[in-house]
Amino acid sequence: MKRKKISVIGAGFTGATTAFLLAQKELGDIVLVDIPNLENPTKGKALDMFESSPVLGFDANVVGTSDYADTKDSDIVIITAGIARRPGMSRDDLVQTNQKIMKSVTKEIVKYSPECYIIVLTNPVDAMTYTVFKESDFPKNRVIGQSGVLDTARFRTFIAEELNVSVKDITGFVLGGHGDDMVPLVRYSYAGGIPLEKLISRDRLEAIIERTRKGGGEIVNLLGNGSAYYAPAASLVEMVEAIVKDQRRILPAITYLEGEYGFHGIYLGVPVILGGGGVEKIIELELLEEEKQALEKSAQSVRKVMDVLV
Amino acid sequence: MKRKKISVIGAGFTGATTAFLLAQKELGDIVLVDIPNLENPTKGKALDMFESSPVLGFDANVVGTSDYADTKDSDIVIITAGIARRPGMSRDDLVQTNQKIMKSVTKEIVKYSPECYIIVLTNPVDAMTYTVFKESDFPKNRVIGQSGVLDTARFRTFIAEELNVSVKDITGFVLGGHGDDMVPLVRYSYAGGIPLEKLISRDRLEAIIERTRKGGGEIVNLLGNGSAYYAPAASLVEMVEAIVKDQRRILPAITYLEGEYGFHGIYLGVPVILGGGGVEKIIELELLEEEKQALEKSAQSVRKVMDVLV
Amino acid sequence: MKRKKISVIGAGFTGATTAFLLAQKELGDIVLVDIPNLENPTKGKALDMFESSPVLGFDANVVGTSDYADTKDSDIVIITAGIARRPGMSRDDLVQTNQKIMKSVTKEIVKYSPECYIIVLTNPVDAMTYTVFKESDFPKNRVIGQSGVLDTARFRTFIAEELNVSVKDITGFVLGGHGDDMVPLVRYSYAGGIPLEKLISRDRLEAIIERTRKGGGEIVNLLGNGSAYYAPAASLVEMVEAIVKDQRRILPAITYLEGEYGFHGIYLGVPVILGGGGVEKIIELELLEEEKQALEKSAQSVRKVMDVLV
Amino acid sequence: MKRKKISVIGAGFTGATTAFLLAQKELGDIVLVDIPNLENPTKGKALDMFESSPVLGFDANVVGTSDYADTKDSDIVIITAGIARRPGMSRDDLVQTNQKIMKSVTKEIVKYSPECYIIVLTNPVDAMTYTVFKESDFPKNRVIGQSGVLDTARFRTFIAEELNVSVKDITGFVLGGHGDDMVPLVRYSYAGGIPLEKLISRDRLEAIIERTRKGGGEIVNLLGNGSAYYAPAASLVEMVEAIVKDQRRILPAITYLEGEYGFHGIYLGVPVILGGGGVEKIIELELLEEEKQALEKSAQSVRKVMDVLV
Repeated sequence: MKRKKISVIGAGFTGATTAFLLAQKELGDIVLVDIPNLENPTKGKALDMFESSPVLGFDANVVGTSDYADTKDSDIVIITAGIARRPGMSRDDLVQTNQKIMKSVTKEIVKYSPECYIIVLTNPVDAMTYTVFKESDFPKNRVIGQSGVLDTARFRTFIAEELNVSVKDITGFVLGGHGDDMVPLVRYSYAGGIPLEKLISRDRLEAIIERTRKGGGEIVNLLGNGSAYYAPAASLVEMVEAIVKDQRRILPAITYLEGEYGFHGIYLGVPVILGGGGVEKIIELELLEEEKQALEKSAQSVRKVMDVLV
Repeated sequence: MKRKKISVIGAGFTGATTAFLLAQKELGDIVLVDIPNLENPTKGKALDMFESSPVLGFDANVVGTSDYADTKDSDIVIITAGIARRPGMSRDDLVQTNQKIMKSVTKEIVKYSPECYIIVLTNPVDAMTYTVFKESDFPKNRVIGQSGVLDTARFRTFIAEELNVSVKDITGFVLGGHGDDMVPLVRYSYAGGIPLEKLISRDRLEAIIERTRKGGGEIVNLLGNGSAYYAPAASLVEMVEAIVKDQRRILPAITYLEGEYGFHGIYLGVPVILGGGGVEKIIELELLEEEKQALEKSAQSVRKVMDVLV
Repeated sequence: MKRKKISVIGAGFTGATTAFLLAQKELGDIVLVDIPNLENPTKGKALDMFESSPVLGFDANVVGTSDYADTKDSDIVIITAGIARRPGMSRDDLVQTNQKIMKSVTKEIVKYSPECYIIVLTNPVDAMTYTVFKESDFPKNRVIGQSGVLDTARFRTFIAEELNVSVKDITGFVLGGHGDDMVPLVRYSYAGGIPLEKLISRDRLEAIIERTRKGGGEIVNLLGNGSAYYAPAASLVEMVEAIVKDQRRILPAITYLEGEYGFHGIYLGVPVILGGGGVEKIIELELLEEEKQALEKSAQSVRKVMDVLV
Repeated sequence: MKRKKISVIGAGFTGATTAFLLAQKELGDIVLVDIPNLENPTKGKALDMFESSPVLGFDANVVGTSDYADTKDSDIVIITAGIARRPGMSRDDLVQTNQKIMKSVTKEIVKYSPECYIIVLTNPVDAMTYTVFKESDFPKNRVIGQSGVLDTARFRTFIAEELNVSVKDITGFVLGGHGDDMVPLVRYSYAGGIPLEKLISRDRLEAIIERTRKGGGEIVNLLGNGSAYYAPAASLVEMVEAIVKDQRRILPAITYLEGEYGFHGIYLGVPVILGGGGVEKIIELELLEEEKQALEKSAQSVRKVMDVLV
């Protein structure tokens, strides 16, 4: 039997933290990839992680590289590469720059691992996942974007804090895009199975939803230089684990819609069954009118970004 | 810093499996106690577990004994001791025999660990927890019965199987007593946050609820000789972990009601916050009329058993 | 990606505990097999374990059966089936009875899982592993016996207890057969890397070695009825994990010798590298004269048992 | 029962990674502390970690602060604060600057947590631990420095890689100071209990020892900007776990010698028993003449640094 092989493209904070968590959980051998300019730091991070293995008790090779040949025959590839928006940069510039990165990265991934699953984290994540999907020519079940697990994690954290109870007992539910386009379905969110409306005042709930929507920005503002990486990395790892262990988790994921929820040809965040076959099923929920509208608005935002793609 | 000390009274299958799981999770040092007649087998099981520790990688002493002095200064004591109903035995005989056992066991526990938390599994568990509560003269937050975690576990298993999804994403909710008196609140039970009614037909749901109600009996019938122990042990361990790690979990537990849900002076299964202080809070839910009636019926069953207590 | 499938033949205490640990560690889906007469109890144990999964947080199907068709395409099969020696039974009777069981079990395993790895626990384990090897016609790397991991676990436990230190820091080393034929190499055994001779008096060390040799009997005597199962199950699971996760562990295992250590055509306990390819390498050590003699004596015991095989 | 409280002083890469691992292992609630200038980034990292908790499944508060009052009643405090040597800075400047930092940090720690254990990572670690010891006026068992766990981890990693076997089966042993002063005792280092000399050529062993000695520098050179943090954090966490869980691990630690190994009034790396009482015992080994000399040389280096202390 062979260990799984998981490649992480982009060795920044998120990529490195993702690699570290994957190794800790013994989900496979890890290849951490970044551009040639950053080859040495990438090797350094990988080696440092590898040197923690006797103490943390995991068996997983962790290597750093700038050569995609080292990713050959990966079972899963995670894309965290891309730039963040800088002052003075237009949103369109960001989209087109990251699109270019997605295309070149995807070419290399497909060349060396034509059977792999790809999970995309790079922002704007809906459009970037779409780009990878088109460029890879993979079936849709094998190209997945992450945002809902993270959004939900933040929501659950804030609720647990508000109620002063274990995070383990908070369930959250989020539809649509990341950030402002997020559609949190409070009526599908619970503490120990109890609907949140019964436990938290409407005002406080609204405030928590708003905080969740701005959750990425809150961290960006605090860090001052850079964005969140611990919770994003954990979210990616949960998705990888669901696939590697064929767990058939019910998780929110950015997936390609072909008629579901009334949308066609767009990557959008909806609940799916994530298992050994990637996105094995899209779960369709009946939505309330206001939820439909919110999801429609979220889809429009995604379409606007897609229009910028070249 | 000192390790916690956890004593398990009754070294049958459930007691032994509980001890094994507690040790595996490094929740504390374990004392496994049974009657003098069974001292050697109890020592044998404890030693066998202890000998698995280098391989499973846990540091926890596990000792077997028939001498309660060895439980001195336990932080938590779990009671699994008691007899099962045998053919020809009336229910009243069962109740009174186990009541006697509870009383004598509790005397010993209190003598050596006056500050401990006690979790009771012995059936009929509501009345037996009440007996321990009265005999110990402990505050109610420190005397807790287990049934709902197990009932919920069974329900969640059946739902996960029905939907062919991960057990991790199924939430269940149960009120009231064990077994036939169980009040499963389907409207508070979900798969990935989605209400079960949206995913499973009413008929299948009814069948699963019925199977959950009879879940203990299903195992008894299959085993032919004895009753379930893996899932009951896991349920006890989750409660212990919530206390030892002060997790403030929202879990169903058999707790002493003093007006909550309209009941007084009775131990009944309701959702609580379980943390470092034991039952830190009882969560009161608004119930539908039919749920109220079911809970009332469940309470009547408990009262009937309590009437048999001497 | 597909979950691994692991079948456990024999649903007694050891088999059931092994299945439970395998499931807890999410090493694969589990099939627990016993004879038709015991089909219901086997199903009962499996279901009970499965019902613990939501609480313990593992995703693994656990099924009980008496039909080998359910083991189809297992990746690993563990054999714990067989009878224990009863009063009045000659050793030869025991050997021949278990040999018959091994043969019939192996036929079924091979029929349904021709590519699997087999790990044998049934006693006398060297001869039984040999029987399975011959009957299966599998390459030797895929038929392995367990005894050294267990013997070492006991030795490590006793040493940790003697020194009052963590079991995690004790290394042990055992050659040769199980029980009285065990050849513990104290000079290769350490506490935190420090040779035991520097920490424990010769007398105490001898007593501990003797206790280790009789470790199985100590548990049998205490239990009064039956033999050890927690530590044996843990030992099997460590071997399975090494194969499933391709860990290339250095572990003592009963493996087929073709010249190594001077032996031919015999299954004997020696250190091996256990990984994704089963026994990937036999590690040959230079032995001291007295160690050679002890190993020779151990091999003779195995040969004597093999002579009884029909 | 109350959760443990662990404060990490210094929220750089090592401090933050340490906090993250401690939280993941549910060893306690975490307070991450840095200077007022960095208060916001510190809060940001802590919040990001906390937001990973629902996904990774841990219950632990993680807060960032620049106010030592928030560390009140910590059970353990870890010091990672301090500056790294910059171009043009003399070693004496480094020592005196970090000494100043240690003194001011220790004052705050002692003020708010007079009963805590302190683990020091800041370099030069022997002299810095000494400084904290003196400033705190704590008993020596409660002030401990880390270096040997990390050095050993690197050594074990390189050996496992060389032999292509699991890191779990490699034992290493290191005496004396960090880096060039490290005294690796190869004769006390093993693969699966087998002395390394039997498995690896003398030349390769020497190369691996040399690589271990320069292990910190190797990472610094690769990263280009900054030093290792994954393996150092893991090493700190192993020490914390040994104390919190009272594991009585045998680990190398920088501890205060009062005659052991012939040294007085100096902090030096030696094997200790680390448990609920911190350094519960120093293990004295008989050394070979050359080992004695190497340890003496290592001690002289430490003394030279101590002479610089003001």
